[in-house]
Amino acid sequence: MKTRTIQLGPHHYEFVCGHHSLVEFARHAAVRACDRFIIITDQGVPTEVLQPVHAALSGVGPTDVLRFPDGERHKSLITVNDLAERAIAAGADRRTAIVALGGGLAGNIAGMVAGLLFRGLTFIQVPTTFMAASDSVLSLKQAVNLSSGKNLAGFYYTPTLVWVELSFLTALAPRHIRAGMCELVKNLLAIAPERIPHFRRILHPQNRYTAAHLHELIDFCIDAKMSVMLNDPYEKQAGLVLEYGHTVGHALELAAGGRYLHGECIAFGMLCAAAVARRARLLSDEEVDLHHELLQLIGISIVPDPGFLDEVILRIRKDNKRGYRRQEPGRIPMVLLDGLGQIHREDEHVVTMVDTEWVEAAIRSQLAVEPETISLAQ
Amino acid sequence: MKTRTIQLGPHHYEFVCGHHSLVEFARHAAVRACDRFIIITDQGVPTEVLQPVHAALSGVGPTDVLRFPDGERHKSLITVNDLAERAIAAGADRRTAIVALGGGLAGNIAGMVAGLLFRGLTFIQVPTTFMAASDSVLSLKQAVNLSSGKNLAGFYYTPTLVWVELSFLTALAPRHIRAGMCELVKNLLAIAPERIPHFRRILHPQNRYTAAHLHELIDFCIDAKMSVMLNDPYEKQAGLVLEYGHTVGHALELAAGGRYLHGECIAFGMLCAAAVARRARLLSDEEVDLHHELLQLIGISIVPDPGFLDEVILRIRKDNKRGYRRQEPGRIPMVLLDGLGQIHREDEHVVTMVDTEWVEAAIRSQLAVEPETISLAQ
Repeated sequence: MKTRTIQLGPHHYEFVCGHHSLVEFARHAAVRACDRFIIITDQGVPTEVLQPVHAALSGVGPTDVLRFPDGERHKSLITVNDLAERAIAAGADRRTAIVALGGGLAGNIAGMVAGLLFRGLTFIQVPTTFMAASDSVLSLKQAVNLSSGKNLAGFYYTPTLVWVELSFLTALAPRHIRAGMCELVKNLLAIAPERIPHFRRILHPQNRYTAAHLHELIDFCIDAKMSVMLNDPYEKQAGLVLEYGHTVGHALELAAGGRYLHGECIAFGMLCAAAVARRARLLSDEEVDLHHELLQLIGISIVPDPGFLDEVILRIRKDNKRGYRRQEPGRIPMVLLDGLGQIHREDEHVVTMVDTEWVEAAIRSQLAVEPETISLAQ
Repeated sequence: MKTRTIQLGPHHYEFVCGHHSLVEFARHAAVRACDRFIIITDQGVPTEVLQPVHAALSGVGPTDVLRFPDGERHKSLITVNDLAERAIAAGADRRTAIVALGGGLAGNIAGMVAGLLFRGLTFIQVPTTFMAASDSVLSLKQAVNLSSGKNLAGFYYTPTLVWVELSFLTALAPRHIRAGMCELVKNLLAIAPERIPHFRRILHPQNRYTAAHLHELIDFCIDAKMSVMLNDPYEKQAGLVLEYGHTVGHALELAAGGRYLHGECIAFGMLCAAAVARRARLLSDEEVDLHHELLQLIGISIVPDPGFLDEVILRIRKDNKRGYRRQEPGRIPMVLLDGLGQIHREDEHVVTMVDTEWVEAAIRSQLAVEPETISLAQ
């Protein structure tokens, strides 16, 4: 078991990563300081995960479980309102902890509920996907979607404690592990390319990772994210590099209505951003090829259904990076790399205005690569 | 015209109070820094107020007006969600300002929308009631109600600018001015009793106040609130004195379903809290009498319909101060005074656990004073 302190600007919290560690979880001071627990989890979280966490917390205080339906369309203020009402009905007061159990969806929804109730309850995150453990819990950002775009409504809220139980992660379906590795590849390409040679030896497409491997990969993601967020906790300047691949990725995720996982969409988004950057002579052919190589190495090869293209373009125009710069007709603000590990700056701005036409061409060039080969094998 | 800086802990914002000042408003740097404006206002705000503010902002950038229905039952996450969707549909991006126009209700709802959209837009408050100008804009607290209680869901969000146009306040109906004075009386009793002799000469039941009077009264409220919130911006310790009268007051406000104004309910709540404090020998008869005297001086005399009593008691048990201390069956956490200008501390806690029976007795004693005499004259 290993404890780290996540420091993001003035905010900090404990991050514990352990194997068969739920007894220690229930003994942790932050848990013991609470009178009552409300576990917020989506219906995709299996009983084998929920049951032991529920049992561990029930030994400390009254523990209720609030479930909500899986899927991006339920990531809304309506769901948050419903859960907040149910939490109060279950007896939540200022001494209650909200416990997020699940992936990024459960984390964000529970983070919204925790931040809102009594203007802020103790918030404990128990991520159960590799993506959540290595990415979404390493951020203060909480958000829900509006009908016109992803993560348009939210706020910053700091968890008190993050607890990663590695046995939950080793039990994941291969597709979910692979998808989780995409943000790790993003960190390698956009923040720490010097670590690529090392991780080339660990990553592999069949993703049979041991608990020790996953722990090392999570540790790397903590280092990479803290290196950019220590001085930019709200991810508005240097931290915007973490949005690499997200402009096209978010649009595809919403357009495809849950058909592709978040990580798979971000992978596709990075390839599109790389194609734009190559055209703008910001990335070399070799640097773009490295994008493809690393994604192949983790077993990701996504060529989305071309039928989504129009919807993707429409949604890109509503991306929540709108307004980081003054709007310009026919141009889209994107995070681009200027060489690996380096965010491109344009007149001191960390987002670059790109012709919509260039973005469309980049998407089309990815679609043309090969027929749809994404593995949906579970 | 006078500009002050409101400093609450590490947060600060500009507070401008002027008479016929909307030309200067439109010229202010914080306004000119925005590309677009969304005015959020409730249906109770008259055209004579909305029109000139809309005209002033339209001279700076595209300005849309989003109206929502008046009344506490619309102070919900559902309304916030609806307004957030409409703001995006109207073209809001990160360079848009949300402008709250109205009383505390519009301020809180707009504050929630501003805080949530893109995780925080520029937030400009134009309070149009004396209550809002002297009380609610002097706080970082934003919140909406849940079905089980008032202000149970919210967060802290700092406005960029508060602009008080005094001609909006002098045009208010007498009942609304009187109700606004109740929080001022709270500040006199709970924070700055040394100013009572001075304000006795200004306050009067017919409340024909000049713009200069209102300005002086607002200035006093800024001084009083900043004195407790400078080191307690989140109102969790010394700042809890601002909740004086609110345990019974909020319960009555919700139980009576909009029949009484917020200030009228707080006035009643202070009398109940004073009766409890007298029984606990924390306040003398003279200090309790001063409560009655000052409320009479501002023209407030509320004896609620006894039919609301059961509902009031029920709601007190759901008050959002629940959990500042460990729950005890049959006891209610309340803010009490230990002499005027002094919050009572019980074992270092700033809320006092009071027997439910004592609170009920205090409420009944106020109901018994005289028949319902509240003036509903507009």
